[in-house]
Amino acid sequence: MATVKLWTDEEVAADLRVKAVFDDIRATRKSNFVNNFWRALANQPAALERTWTNIKQVMIEPGALDPLTKELIYIAVSAVNSCSYCVHSHTAAARAKGLSAEQHAELLAVIGMASETNALATTLQIPVDAEFEVL
Amino acid sequence: MATVKLWTDEEVAADLRVKAVFDDIRATRKSNFVNNFWRALANQPAALERTWTNIKQVMIEPGALDPLTKELIYIAVSAVNSCSYCVHSHTAAARAKGLSAEQHAELLAVIGMASETNALATTLQIPVDAEFEVL
Amino acid sequence: MATVKLWTDEEVAADLRVKAVFDDIRATRKSNFVNNFWRALANQPAALERTWTNIKQVMIEPGALDPLTKELIYIAVSAVNSCSYCVHSHTAAARAKGLSAEQHAELLAVIGMASETNALATTLQIPVDAEFEVL
Amino acid sequence: MATVKLWTDEEVAADLRVKAVFDDIRATRKSNFVNNFWRALANQPAALERTWTNIKQVMIEPGALDPLTKELIYIAVSAVNSCSYCVHSHTAAARAKGLSAEQHAELLAVIGMASETNALATTLQIPVDAEFEVL
Amino acid sequence: MATVKLWTDEEVAADLRVKAVFDDIRATRKSNFVNNFWRALANQPAALERTWTNIKQVMIEPGALDPLTKELIYIAVSAVNSCSYCVHSHTAAARAKGLSAEQHAELLAVIGMASETNALATTLQIPVDAEFEVL
Amino acid sequence: MATVKLWTDEEVAADLRVKAVFDDIRATRKSNFVNNFWRALANQPAALERTWTNIKQVMIEPGALDPLTKELIYIAVSAVNSCSYCVHSHTAAARAKGLSAEQHAELLAVIGMASETNALATTLQIPVDAEFEVL
Repeated sequence: MATVKLWTDEEVAADLRVKAVFDDIRATRKSNFVNNFWRALANQPAALERTWTNIKQVMIEPGALDPLTKELIYIAVSAVNSCSYCVHSHTAAARAKGLSAEQHAELLAVIGMASETNALATTLQIPVDAEFEVL
Repeated sequence: MATVKLWTDEEVAADLRVKAVFDDIRATRKSNFVNNFWRALANQPAALERTWTNIKQVMIEPGALDPLTKELIYIAVSAVNSCSYCVHSHTAAARAKGLSAEQHAELLAVIGMASETNALATTLQIPVDAEFEVL
Repeated sequence: MATVKLWTDEEVAADLRVKAVFDDIRATRKSNFVNNFWRALANQPAALERTWTNIKQVMIEPGALDPLTKELIYIAVSAVNSCSYCVHSHTAAARAKGLSAEQHAELLAVIGMASETNALATTLQIPVDAEFEVL
Repeated sequence: MATVKLWTDEEVAADLRVKAVFDDIRATRKSNFVNNFWRALANQPAALERTWTNIKQVMIEPGALDPLTKELIYIAVSAVNSCSYCVHSHTAAARAKGLSAEQHAELLAVIGMASETNALATTLQIPVDAEFEVL
Repeated sequence: MATVKLWTDEEVAADLRVKAVFDDIRATRKSNFVNNFWRALANQPAALERTWTNIKQVMIEPGALDPLTKELIYIAVSAVNSCSYCVHSHTAAARAKGLSAEQHAELLAVIGMASETNALATTLQIPVDAEFEVL
Repeated sequence: MATVKLWTDEEVAADLRVKAVFDDIRATRKSNFVNNFWRALANQPAALERTWTNIKQVMIEPGALDPLTKELIYIAVSAVNSCSYCVHSHTAAARAKGLSAEQHAELLAVIGMASETNALATTLQIPVDAEFEVL
């Protein structure tokens, strides 16, 4: 299905640059499972390194938003972008970080509500209120 | 700019059905300010009532996600849908609910990172890992 | 604002290939007004001719859908694609073809409802029912 | 495939709140078939009730647009939002409401044409004509 | 899976109008393989003819951009529109026109980077610099 | 208009971390002009550094695609994402790298054509041909 080859563990082991990233993914996540996204990016070592470095900085390092909240935002973006793979992988990630059924239900409600009002505002071409401008 | 008329307070006051919704918006938000979104929807009382009822249920009633988290998700959806009005109004709403500059920075980083990896996954047409399927 | 020059009537008059299309637009629409979309496309005569020919075939020639229904579909597509120009121009076109306030209200409700359920179905990654497959 | 469980008829029968909605769906549509969309939403009774109530009000109750026209608009929105599930379910719904092959062909032509001109207008950043503004 | 029937070679052979387009596709591409896109459009001869005529003019006739560059742009548009079919077909087309693994890697990097900065610019609602305006 | 403050040169000069990035932007581009995108990101030094580092790696360092081709892809992505700011800034960038009027016309034609066929393929839910699968 993919437009590129997905690397097997054997192929990863034979490429030092790719292996270094996969080793770090496994160590950081404390899991031997490496999902297809990284196996596809392995064809492009520079992109693999850059993407993993950025994902670690943005999604894994402690910051002002807690890890579950960041996954909720990731799911929302992925859904609106119609990225089936990303909705699946980040819903799984959110569950691993403690997403409850009630939280998932509210996430859905907010995504649905926002999509509806976005469509209304765009169809009506509503001008931005002066009150919303940053001074 | 809008494709429909934006109702003034005088026009709202003259329509009992619209006035009832505006009164509830003001009472619920404890503010006299009613933004253009509702002034545009006022042309369609059924849509006005339905949308406000749903927004109250989804965004305002206490639930499993805190109000600021819901605004972050709303901003993310609005940005990916390119809804300029909604990005403005919900960024203002998030600030009113305590959004810090650090949280805004992380929100941006997650939206940007998700958009990038969504595009990569879609261009590569990566198949969903069996591990992500719900049993 | 545009990323290309918008042609004035004087510039159109000086270019026979562009003038022929503008003359046909005016004759077909029975109006001297030619909107900015065509004035921007005038920079690219082949695209101008191809687009106008296709628009006439799809939107103006009699067919299985009435002209107002086609404008409603056009507005819906334009709103979801966040094309501000197109929402404005086709809402104006729909009004010229008799769009009532009640019909506009229902169009909005359908666009909003569809956008909401689209987002729900995508976030839930709901599989297509076998009943919906074409035999 | 779904990111949540799809409820079977047995599970629905065991939950009074969910069963009430499913009973109404079956009675309203005069059909025993309930598609996966509702079986996924069943995990979230509040969303199930709110969505069905809104769908009935917008799509089923008589109004200013006929039922088939509303389905055409729904298909258009779903296609632009890349919602595979929704394109399938609403194309089936449109056929059940009498969509002819000729009407489907025209729907496709309008969706395609609108998507093309949307892309052109956005790439060219064409400013809205003053003639299109609502006074 | 499709919402319309895909025409077999036997069905094509029995319809002179459709056969003429398929013959031209085969002759122009110097290949007997005709992909599903055209087999679906065959249900709508006018759309089939118009689309093939336009594709030939835009994608096949010599112009100011080389054929591989046009395929790269096509893939980028298709990815952002989440068109799985189109990403597959145009990635195959790009490979047939000489796309190297290194070029594919860079295409991905640009699509990813652009999607990220698009999301940042939209979330921040950054105003266009006067320097970017066309005089 | 922006949802964050745009940094002036004076503010940039007073922040060593931000100043270092702006100095590198000016040196790399051999121009004193720094556009609003970076002035908005300046509020978030980590995002500013990460984004500039990535942009340099992807867009400026020599690679398998020439600089103008990369700008054309960037414009295509930005147009489909409806990012007005990005369409403006990258059209200006493409012109600075030699984009001719003829090339711009072809870029538009390809973006338009791809958007149209994307919409057709999605509305028809065309299954991917086996011939397009990567072995």
